[in-house]
Amino acid sequence: MNQPRLPLPFPVVAWTGQAVRLLDQTRLPQQLAFRDCRTVAAVCEAIAELAVRGAPAIGIAAGYGLVLSWHLGRVQGRRDLAGLSADLDADRARLAATRPTAVNLFWALRRVHAAAAHAIAAEQDAAAVEGALLAAAQAVHAGDVATGRAIGEHGQRLLTSPATVLTHCNAGALATGGYGTALGVVYAACQAGKEIEVFADETRPLLQGARLTAWELQNQGIPVTVLPDAAAATLLAQGRVQAVICGADRVAACGDAANKVGTYPLAVLACRHGVPFYIAAPCSSFDPATARGEQIEIEQRDPDEVHRLGGTRVTPAGTAAFNPAFDVTPAELITAFITELGVMRPPYDRSLTPVLDSAGSEC
Amino acid sequence: MNQPRLPLPFPVVAWTGQAVRLLDQTRLPQQLAFRDCRTVAAVCEAIAELAVRGAPAIGIAAGYGLVLSWHLGRVQGRRDLAGLSADLDADRARLAATRPTAVNLFWALRRVHAAAAHAIAAEQDAAAVEGALLAAAQAVHAGDVATGRAIGEHGQRLLTSPATVLTHCNAGALATGGYGTALGVVYAACQAGKEIEVFADETRPLLQGARLTAWELQNQGIPVTVLPDAAAATLLAQGRVQAVICGADRVAACGDAANKVGTYPLAVLACRHGVPFYIAAPCSSFDPATARGEQIEIEQRDPDEVHRLGGTRVTPAGTAAFNPAFDVTPAELITAFITELGVMRPPYDRSLTPVLDSAGSEC
Repeated sequence: MNQPRLPLPFPVVAWTGQAVRLLDQTRLPQQLAFRDCRTVAAVCEAIAELAVRGAPAIGIAAGYGLVLSWHLGRVQGRRDLAGLSADLDADRARLAATRPTAVNLFWALRRVHAAAAHAIAAEQDAAAVEGALLAAAQAVHAGDVATGRAIGEHGQRLLTSPATVLTHCNAGALATGGYGTALGVVYAACQAGKEIEVFADETRPLLQGARLTAWELQNQGIPVTVLPDAAAATLLAQGRVQAVICGADRVAACGDAANKVGTYPLAVLACRHGVPFYIAAPCSSFDPATARGEQIEIEQRDPDEVHRLGGTRVTPAGTAAFNPAFDVTPAELITAFITELGVMRPPYDRSLTPVLDSAGSEC
Repeated sequence: MNQPRLPLPFPVVAWTGQAVRLLDQTRLPQQLAFRDCRTVAAVCEAIAELAVRGAPAIGIAAGYGLVLSWHLGRVQGRRDLAGLSADLDADRARLAATRPTAVNLFWALRRVHAAAAHAIAAEQDAAAVEGALLAAAQAVHAGDVATGRAIGEHGQRLLTSPATVLTHCNAGALATGGYGTALGVVYAACQAGKEIEVFADETRPLLQGARLTAWELQNQGIPVTVLPDAAAATLLAQGRVQAVICGADRVAACGDAANKVGTYPLAVLACRHGVPFYIAAPCSSFDPATARGEQIEIEQRDPDEVHRLGGTRVTPAGTAAFNPAFDVTPAELITAFITELGVMRPPYDRSLTPVLDSAGSEC
């Protein structure tokens, strides 16, 4: 378990020239291992089984997935743009169908696909179109890292020193292009010389907090304490937390935010105990086409994630399980959104306008 | 896993004549197995490692532990009451030191010990004192089963048919003398012909909901769905729950109630969504000597319960963990207490008086 300290940004997703390389998050914290996806089906599988997860990271992986689609066609000797385009469209649809909630996935696919469409319209050859796809995917990736740093910089000003931050799931380097949103704020605060301690909800059923948030904070030398999700209320009631910071998978135009299941009760408890509750998310997580939270499609995941722990069945055979991946926190409970454009406070019908404009205008 | 349907009350705790026999709850739901504790140390170990758990059940087990203490002395040939009494006092202290929060433990020990003191004062012989101890322990046990049935009967009138009930941890047959408190209400409602469905929080870290509540409800043929603790807020927000019913490990005189960690956030969410939140508990869980919730000692359990799942370490080495066993729900969030004396509603400074009198006067 003695693993090297990684510099930020983490190598979460990369294009190797032949494959989409992912830092395999199903194997952390036991092993720091990479998985090369050499087919679009393998990329889809990695997204579905959460080898890569986190709204920004799956968008980036899907973007590189489009590069892979085109590249494989060319390697197989195809040169006709119409055939390559048809495959690209089909692969885009497969990638878009992997997970329904995070809007960054659709945003990144739209943006990278648009680059190909533009190059094709300009009658470039197949190699040049691949170059355009790769440049667009890399721009999405580099943009996300820059966005994480900007979110961190805006957000860290909200924190005192010392400060104890509570977070849920993993909205860190591993969930993004390599820097992080909620944890980007923590990284930037530490870099600014602030003394930050983090409490990380373990985040059942897949334990992204216990496995991933704990791992990356420890990797960066930041003190972290893991707790059962249900114990967070005790911390808040005891006044031991100065800020709750979470990520988001999709934010509706009104400010209602979908994030990992368990975020909504944290927001309710933070409000009750007068602790600020922040959502740190890039503009690409905001969806101008979704007016309100109840319109966000919530992914229902395999009941076996609840029934089994480390391969062992814990519930009696025949029991049912309820396993929504996300919940929706109403805008009224969110103290502020921390975006790359700055910290947006209520009333959100005004303050989110530039964020929604940015999200809508990117392609 | 095909196990016979057990009649209520379940054989959770029993005195065999030589040992305290426990239905071993660490092995459920995989195996319905019993553990015979032949020394007081073994009883203490069983309580500490939660082979028997639930406030009423540990009180009953500890009561039989006093019988075992006296019995072992006699088997070893001791006849002098002074020596047997000294051992009894030492064993009472060891049993009382197993877990700090549930007040039923101290209540049952006090009651059973008082029976011995009375018999000794009456100059009975060692065998007669053992008889008095056993009669007192059996009275605590039988009283608890009757109490569970009364709680069930009072509580079931609060439920419509059909109704969906949400519960946390296990306040069922397995937590008591064999009938249950929160689940006693469910059993009585079903017996009254009502159609009840239960959502059971899995209850991290030790999964009493996923393992025990699911097992005993399924054993009784009642539909049960297990969910991650953090997903309960979604159910409440969706209006899918008609009542939340939990047990208690200790209720302060003002009505603040300590129960398994995760109960407090459920109460906050139930209140927010207008769903009644009930605590079902016997008078023996009420502590007239504790004025307010903040005076209740909260057990902090081994961090390894959070770090490990089924033997596998899930957090990175060196990570800290926060693992309180209980939290405190303030009286203002509790719609009513369901006790064997009836349903007690606010204002609690009046309605709890007979409950506290009953708790205080039992020995």
